[in-house]
Amino acid sequence: MMRIITISREFGSGGRELGKRLADLLGYEYYDREIVTAIAENKGMNENYVEKLIEGQALKRVHIHVRSSFSGGIAMGQARTDLLLEQKKVIEAIARTGKNCVIVGRNADVLLKEFAPFKLFVCADMDTKIKRCLERAGEDEKLSRKEMERKIRTIDKGRAQTREIVTNIPWGDSKAYHLTVNTAEWNIKELAPMIAGFANCWFERRENDTVIGSL
Amino acid sequence: MMRIITISREFGSGGRELGKRLADLLGYEYYDREIVTAIAENKGMNENYVEKLIEGQALKRVHIHVRSSFSGGIAMGQARTDLLLEQKKVIEAIARTGKNCVIVGRNADVLLKEFAPFKLFVCADMDTKIKRCLERAGEDEKLSRKEMERKIRTIDKGRAQTREIVTNIPWGDSKAYHLTVNTAEWNIKELAPMIAGFANCWFERRENDTVIGSL
Repeated sequence: MMRIITISREFGSGGRELGKRLADLLGYEYYDREIVTAIAENKGMNENYVEKLIEGQALKRVHIHVRSSFSGGIAMGQARTDLLLEQKKVIEAIARTGKNCVIVGRNADVLLKEFAPFKLFVCADMDTKIKRCLERAGEDEKLSRKEMERKIRTIDKGRAQTREIVTNIPWGDSKAYHLTVNTAEWNIKELAPMIAGFANCWFERRENDTVIGSL
Repeated sequence: MMRIITISREFGSGGRELGKRLADLLGYEYYDREIVTAIAENKGMNENYVEKLIEGQALKRVHIHVRSSFSGGIAMGQARTDLLLEQKKVIEAIARTGKNCVIVGRNADVLLKEFAPFKLFVCADMDTKIKRCLERAGEDEKLSRKEMERKIRTIDKGRAQTREIVTNIPWGDSKAYHLTVNTAEWNIKELAPMIAGFANCWFERRENDTVIGSL
């Protein structure tokens, strides 16, 4: 049975880096931004716009844009729903390739439940996340600490909202994941081999136990 | 620097077994019920009564008992506070021994913050916890599934309340722990060596990095 690791993560917690390192260590395919690219291509839409709309970011700006395209405030919800359905198709297509992979975000843990993925949630305290984001911010994104905190909260709020569409277990609830790791006092490079070992052990157990996959 | 692993756990999640196994694997001292025994001895009180009062269980029954001893409803809070202070002293005395240890429950992660413990939270979904508790229930404790669920909720509610007294970060919030593990699809015996490796790696990192201990 193919092995899928899904990573849900708070913005700025290092979940993306951890996912990339896990894929490298384990020799798995890696999917993150690639999913948005595929949706944008399939729909003939701008990639950044797709990302923002799916994650419920910058709602006001998107709202205006959508209103002008669909001539109605209600279209906002419909546009987002269409993209989420397309995202579901893309993620299911990834699973159908049968190749072991790491998928970051996009509620892949819920969408691919039948594949019994190893589900990881990555979090950190706000100070750690702000520090990480400020260090990694591009030249064109000079935000103050306060602005960065607002950005993090907005993005995570959008993720929690999108989560509500696909499942009734709240985003980040430890009971919905096999493991929840707080990256605050870790170097992601040191953390990755341990998580890889953890996931491998779980997959070995899954292959010997039909009870696995109940989460 | 001494190494302390603190385990906070939902009732029925297997946190106690995991703690015992970790202590055995690592050759650490193990403290759980021993803390209640020490408090009861120091205070000259019944051990089960101390446990129930500290954890906020069976409030009504305890209330009557305390009322008769202290002649006032308000004494309930005071009696619990006294025991929590005694518990704090016992836990601090354990830390002063300087021996590496695993401490289960009792908010030791918060009380021993200055010792920079490795903080683990252990959880599971309700079905898994009920199953585990029913399998382990003694002959004198024949509860139905419904009654067991009620017991689990009551005990965990008490733990969450006690947590509120010592810290403003809610009990079970992943940001307050280094690692949160869901035992639902694990055999605790298989899980323990991985957690031990995780903790060891974190301690090694702590000893080389002054930033550690910020959680």
